[in-house]
Amino acid sequence: SPASSSMDTNPRKFMDFPFVTTPHRNLMIDLVSTVENRLESQLKPCTLPPDVQYYCNQSGTSQGSLHIRSSHSSSQVDFILGSWLHCELPTGGSLNITSLSAYLNVSTDAPNFLIELIQSSPTSLVLILDLPPRKDLVLYPEYLQTFYENTRLDSLRQTLEKLPEVKTYYSSALYIRCVTSPTSIMIRVDTEGAGPGRMEEIVKDHVDPVAKAALGIWLDQCACGQRNVDEAEMAYLEKRDGLIKNKTIEIDLGSNFPRLFGPDIANRILGASHYGGVSR
Amino acid sequence: SPASSSMDTNPRKFMDFPFVTTPHRNLMIDLVSTVENRLESQLKPCTLPPDVQYYCNQSGTSQGSLHIRSSHSSSQVDFILGSWLHCELPTGGSLNITSLSAYLNVSTDAPNFLIELIQSSPTSLVLILDLPPRKDLVLYPEYLQTFYENTRLDSLRQTLEKLPEVKTYYSSALYIRCVTSPTSIMIRVDTEGAGPGRMEEIVKDHVDPVAKAALGIWLDQCACGQRNVDEAEMAYLEKRDGLIKNKTIEIDLGSNFPRLFGPDIANRILGASHYGGVSR
Repeated sequence: SPASSSMDTNPRKFMDFPFVTTPHRNLMIDLVSTVENRLESQLKPCTLPPDVQYYCNQSGTSQGSLHIRSSHSSSQVDFILGSWLHCELPTGGSLNITSLSAYLNVSTDAPNFLIELIQSSPTSLVLILDLPPRKDLVLYPEYLQTFYENTRLDSLRQTLEKLPEVKTYYSSALYIRCVTSPTSIMIRVDTEGAGPGRMEEIVKDHVDPVAKAALGIWLDQCACGQRNVDEAEMAYLEKRDGLIKNKTIEIDLGSNFPRLFGPDIANRILGASHYGGVSR
Repeated sequence: SPASSSMDTNPRKFMDFPFVTTPHRNLMIDLVSTVENRLESQLKPCTLPPDVQYYCNQSGTSQGSLHIRSSHSSSQVDFILGSWLHCELPTGGSLNITSLSAYLNVSTDAPNFLIELIQSSPTSLVLILDLPPRKDLVLYPEYLQTFYENTRLDSLRQTLEKLPEVKTYYSSALYIRCVTSPTSIMIRVDTEGAGPGRMEEIVKDHVDPVAKAALGIWLDQCACGQRNVDEAEMAYLEKRDGLIKNKTIEIDLGSNFPRLFGPDIANRILGASHYGGVSR
C-alpha cells in the first residue's frame, strides 16, 4: 500500500520520539542522552537489525522503535533498553508509549531504572517511574534503607501525588505491581476538564524534574555505586532478574504485539527483547 | 487520680470496641466472631494478663485493649491478634484504631490476614485490609496466581476505589508498604464536605462487605487450605515471618506507645505483642 511503502523509505529513528508532545519528547531525549553520555564508555553500539530499530504494520497504523545497547564485560550495566510505540486507535485517537529502562548485571545487586509514559488520549497519561529492587525488600531491610529510605526517593512520589489531576495507577497485571519498589511512582494524570495545555504543563513542570531527579539518583547510587556480591547472591540475582525479565516481556508484549503488528513482527520484537541481557 | 481509678474499677473489654461508630464496631465484632467461631477448636483462650487485655495511661486520655489467642499445636494457625486503641488528641478530637490480624504457622505457606481501621477524625478513615503474602511474589508467580489472581481479590479493592471519597493511602513506613500484597487495600476515606452520616454509610455499605469477603477468602483458601511445605521452605518462612513480625511491631508500637502510655505500659504491651507466636 502507498502508506506502508512511504513508511519503508522513510523509517523513523528511535531518538525521533514522534507523535508525542514537545515536553514529552524533550524529556525522553534528555533521559536517554543523560544515560548514554554518563555510561558511554561502558556501552556497545545498538546492533539491532534495522527492521527492529524501526517497525510498522502493513497499513502503517501501528509503528514502533526498539533501541538496545548492551555493555562491555567490565561494566556493572547489563543493558539499556529504550522504545516508543504509536498505534492509531479505532476510536480516532492514538496510543503512544515511550520507555527507557536500564538493567544492571549480577556484579551488583543495586536496583534497575525504569520509566514509561503511556498517553492514551490528549488528556490522559500514565507514568511509571521506578528503581525496581533486585532483592526481596522484606528479607533485606538494609537494602531498603540504602536505596529507598536514604535516597529520599519517596519525596519525588509525594510531589507528584499532590497535584489534583493525579491518581494512583494500578497495573491490571498483578505481577507488574509486585516487581515495583515501595517508592514507585505509578500514577494516572487526568486533565479532562482542565484548560488546554495543562497536560504539557504537568509533563514539563512536574514529571520532567521528578524523572530527571530519579535518574540522577539511579546513576549515582546504583549504576556507579560499589556493592559486594558473593557467589550465592549472584545466583539469587541471576534467578530473580531472569524471572522478572521473562514475565514482564510476556505481559508487556505477549498479548498486545501480535494483535497490533501480526505474528511475524511480534516474534521479531519479542526475540530482540529477550536477547537483551538474557544471552550474555 | 480520680480518672484513672475510675478506669481501673471499670476496665473495658476487647469486644467492647468503644469510642468508634456503630457500623465500625459492628464490623469489628463480626470479623472477630467469624474468625473465632470458625477456628474455635484450634484456639486456646486468651491468657494475657488483665493489665494488657485493658490498659490506660494515668490521666485516662489514652486507653487500649490487646487480645491474643494462640493455637493448639495441630493447627495451621499460629495466633490471632486483635486490638483497639483510643487516644484523646490535644486538638480536641480523638484517634481510634481497631485491628484484627491472623497469622499462620510454618506448616503452611498461605498468606496471613490483616485489617486495620484508623479513624483520626469523624470525616477521615484509613483502611488497611490485606492477605499479606509469606513469600516473595516475584520469585513465586504460581503463589501469586493461587492466592491473589485465582481468588479475584483485586475486585474487592476495585469496588472501594470507585468511591469518590477514596484515595490511595501510603504508609509513611516504607517497610509496611513492602509487606503488603499487590491486591492490598490501603485507602484513605475522606468525607469532609459530604453530608453527615456519610462515613458511617461508607463503612456499613462498602467497607463492611468487602472486609467480610476478604476474611471469607482467607478462611477458606488460607487458614483451612492444604499446602505442602518442605523443610527448606519452613526455614525460609520462619525467617521471613520473624523478620516481618519484629519490624512491624517496632514500627507500629515502638515509636508511639512510649509517648502515649509511658515506658512501663509500653514495655508491657510490646512484650505481649512479641510473645504472640514468637515463643511457640
